[in-house]
Amino acid sequence: PKKETIYSNRGMTLEEDLNETNQYYLANGLAVIHKKPTPVQIVHVDYKKRSTAVIKEAYFRQASTTDYNGICNSKYIDFEAKETKSPTSFPLKNIHEHQIEHMQNIIKQNGIAFVIIRFSLTEEIFLLEGKRLFEFWDRMKNGGRKSITKKELMIHGHPIELGWAPRIDYLKVIRQLYGF
Amino acid sequence: PKKETIYSNRGMTLEEDLNETNQYYLANGLAVIHKKPTPVQIVHVDYKKRSTAVIKEAYFRQASTTDYNGICNSKYIDFEAKETKSPTSFPLKNIHEHQIEHMQNIIKQNGIAFVIIRFSLTEEIFLLEGKRLFEFWDRMKNGGRKSITKKELMIHGHPIELGWAPRIDYLKVIRQLYGF
Ligand SMILES: [Mg+2]
Ligand SMILES: [Mg+2]
Repeated sequence: PKKETIYSNRGMTLEEDLNETNQYYLANGLAVIHKKPTPVQIVHVDYKKRSTAVIKEAYFRQASTTDYNGICNSKYIDFEAKETKSPTSFPLKNIHEHQIEHMQNIIKQNGIAFVIIRFSLTEEIFLLEGKRLFEFWDRMKNGGRKSITKKELMIHGHPIELGWAPRIDYLKVIRQLYGF
Repeated sequence: PKKETIYSNRGMTLEEDLNETNQYYLANGLAVIHKKPTPVQIVHVDYKKRSTAVIKEAYFRQASTTDYNGICNSKYIDFEAKETKSPTSFPLKNIHEHQIEHMQNIIKQNGIAFVIIRFSLTEEIFLLEGKRLFEFWDRMKNGGRKSITKKELMIHGHPIELGWAPRIDYLKVIRQLYGF
């Protein structure tokens, strides 16, 4: 049956939608996938107050891995999620070299690595497998364009329609691709 | 050949030793396992300074999962690491209920979950599989003792000798137990 309802993301960020999605997966016993906490370098903590320690000085650190990982049906799952305000292409400067290396290491261990990209202007969402992402990364490294066009994502990636529950059913795509 | 060198941990914390171990695994292509960042709730950030955002008020949050996860040879790996100054037993108050639930969820997805316990006074280290930990947890819930004795860890857990590289070779134990 053809889907007739088109959901809007009601101003939720990609991260909020993915957290809801992961909560749905968890509550239904489908997967255990969590966002890692934001890495913070803590410099000064005030222990004076009796009950709670207050962090008084800290700095954001660059993540050395991807944002999300976990397990679904024996399979290790690892991905990065990125939103762009650009209308027609995804700028590769949103991804860091060590995140590419991390995804390559994951795939060497036979894990599943990918990136979820949202174009916030149009609310279009694509899943792009690690091995495809690496090709675009290499193209950039070899002097080619520094972004992935939406047209390329339509060919080499997989569109994900926004749903109600789960909101971003990326595991549906992954299970089809990897046959589990 | 019998090991003759006894390594001392030179005052390193369990976390430092495990980070070195995980770096060794990563550098040698054996596994990709990372410690998750400490979860912090950020309340106030000072963006005034031109270059760096300074976190001026933040609080430690309780972790909803375990501290370490990753992949080794297709297998999803998930564990918590705990040190105790108690000489003869590991107090279960060091583990939170939601961490037990998380480990149970991981095992339902066919992942490998365990805890690494170090007695800091004697530098003894034990690996205890999730399924064993749950038995001690249930004993406590049913009114039994609130800790696991070292004797019980010797029977139901697996001692890990401190080494040079890797320092805490927990994957050796896991690979033997799970046959991979
Ligand atoms: Mg990120
Ligand atoms: Mg912890």
